[in-house]
Amino acid sequence: MQKRDFPVSQVRRYLEPGPIVLVSSHWQGERNIMTLGWHTILEFTPSLVGLMISAGNHSFELIRQSRECVINLPTTALTDTVVRIGNTTGAEVDKFAEFGLTPETASTVSAPLIAECHASFECRLHEDALVDSYNFFIFEVLKAHVAPSPRHPETLHYTGDGVFMVSGKIISRRALFRPGML
Amino acid sequence: MQKRDFPVSQVRRYLEPGPIVLVSSHWQGERNIMTLGWHTILEFTPSLVGLMISAGNHSFELIRQSRECVINLPTTALTDTVVRIGNTTGAEVDKFAEFGLTPETASTVSAPLIAECHASFECRLHEDALVDSYNFFIFEVLKAHVAPSPRHPETLHYTGDGVFMVSGKIISRRALFRPGML
Repeated sequence: MQKRDFPVSQVRRYLEPGPIVLVSSHWQGERNIMTLGWHTILEFTPSLVGLMISAGNHSFELIRQSRECVINLPTTALTDTVVRIGNTTGAEVDKFAEFGLTPETASTVSAPLIAECHASFECRLHEDALVDSYNFFIFEVLKAHVAPSPRHPETLHYTGDGVFMVSGKIISRRALFRPGML
Repeated sequence: MQKRDFPVSQVRRYLEPGPIVLVSSHWQGERNIMTLGWHTILEFTPSLVGLMISAGNHSFELIRQSRECVINLPTTALTDTVVRIGNTTGAEVDKFAEFGLTPETASTVSAPLIAECHASFECRLHEDALVDSYNFFIFEVLKAHVAPSPRHPETLHYTGDGVFMVSGKIISRRALFRPGML
């Protein structure tokens, strides 16, 4: 997917609504992808995102050691792939090859972008204070790549038990906001 | 709204898809409500949720001092109220009275539930290590109250700039999951 540079201070536009993401990583020649739904925006500038990466995942050590990752945003076009990535382990398969995904070279980190995703956010570890106790990593988004259309991609939002909520219509209440609160 | 007890280990069902929530609080006779979109599930058992509560909010001190809050889930029926709560400060108005919301007594915390919301989760502070540095509170959900219908309430997901994404259709990929991954 053709992506353009996007302001890192505005990644909330894509992550705040709560989509499932694909986190790619790289460490000492090994690469991996995991499916992840437990994340939150934490700050605009620096652009901070918190991710809960369960220690049972093969990606955990790759990310903990490299202190980097790429957060990729899949749309519903990749629904089955999202589930299959979550169902397999990088200890046994190369998920890029297994699922026909294209790794692209990032600008600031060694982890690859996933070409088929709508957006990719290059991240470096910013705070590891809660990694040992809660598997909670705070990353700074260093560079953001976003496809210019569609403006509102159809994203997947997990509710447990195999069921996803798909993003729906867009409504604006811009006129109701005080300018400083937008 | 008539709510029933709901297992606290399953609150991800409502919070993981990334809805805007209304956080109610109480401290020394004062009560407040804030609109919040920066949160993530962190664990099933104990049931842990992380909230980024910006220190500029009037609710910040009420929650920091009381070490409690209630996370309430509004649907699109409350869209304008959600925006107006975010636009006003509890230092000037009683938001329950101002917006015609009904406080209900919680079971385990002094913060009130909001009767008009689809679900309410009573929370006690579990970890404050990142409160001073990142305004990031980790709460344990002690009790969950959820309206039994509709099964998939229409929730609001903020994208910045006054624009909300509304939750859409539900799709199941249950058959694709390995049992342990549901």
